[in-house]
Amino acid sequence: MLNDEFFMNEALKEAKIAFEKGEIPIGAVIVSNNQIIARAHNMTETLNDVTAHAEMMAFTSASNYLGSKYLNDCTLYVTIEPCTMCAGASYWTQIGKIVYGADDDKRGFSKINSQILHPKTELIKGVLKDKCAELIIQFFKSKRN
Amino acid sequence: MLNDEFFMNEALKEAKIAFEKGEIPIGAVIVSNNQIIARAHNMTETLNDVTAHAEMMAFTSASNYLGSKYLNDCTLYVTIEPCTMCAGASYWTQIGKIVYGADDDKRGFSKINSQILHPKTELIKGVLKDKCAELIIQFFKSKRN
Repeated sequence: MLNDEFFMNEALKEAKIAFEKGEIPIGAVIVSNNQIIARAHNMTETLNDVTAHAEMMAFTSASNYLGSKYLNDCTLYVTIEPCTMCAGASYWTQIGKIVYGADDDKRGFSKINSQILHPKTELIKGVLKDKCAELIIQFFKSKRN
Repeated sequence: MLNDEFFMNEALKEAKIAFEKGEIPIGAVIVSNNQIIARAHNMTETLNDVTAHAEMMAFTSASNYLGSKYLNDCTLYVTIEPCTMCAGASYWTQIGKIVYGADDDKRGFSKINSQILHPKTELIKGVLKDKCAELIIQFFKSKRN
């Protein structure tokens, strides 16, 4: 079943790879015509680059794959609510749909202004949110020990 | 004289390189201890990537140079007001100061929420603003002909 839960589970696989690398565990995939065309996970520590969020790398990767700057017919699945930077990037891609798992109550874009997204971008939230949030909670727990 | 005008002129040089490549002419430099440690210009067309704004590439480049994710002691000079994506990225870098030239009345971050910047980031605007804006006006004029 190629539904939102299926693709969010794929994003979660990416988040788990980040976890194992000691990165804040956030993962993303981009889907076009029911096919995953980009996969990425947070790499800010590994790359020593605060712009290396899962979504940013997934956008670049999807654009490379499609040979197009615009992702109108694509869906971004990301385990945590995008931050202002990533939501701002999604505006420029004109992405068709964003599906995220858990809210980010601190740095989620909707805390700044929910109109950061492109007016044509459909937004769905809360898909597998407990699993997505749990990974983050576990990560910070492991860091405190 | 290594003042704001001097460094904005360096950012303008980058913007002019973008112009010659057919890119929307926006340029940026990042300065640390009165030294330019990163230079970049908008490359969205060349790279086919909407995230390839001058500021984003300058942040990545400065982090690489310093071997640090954070740019607390740095100043970003950019010819046009950063968009939401770039301002959101600047938050994560904790950059010390942002100096921009001309306002972007459509997509400038301050039209969304001026609190996108990191609370420690000092903001100066309007440096060489006419020169910075003129380049953009010329660019779109040339596209219409």
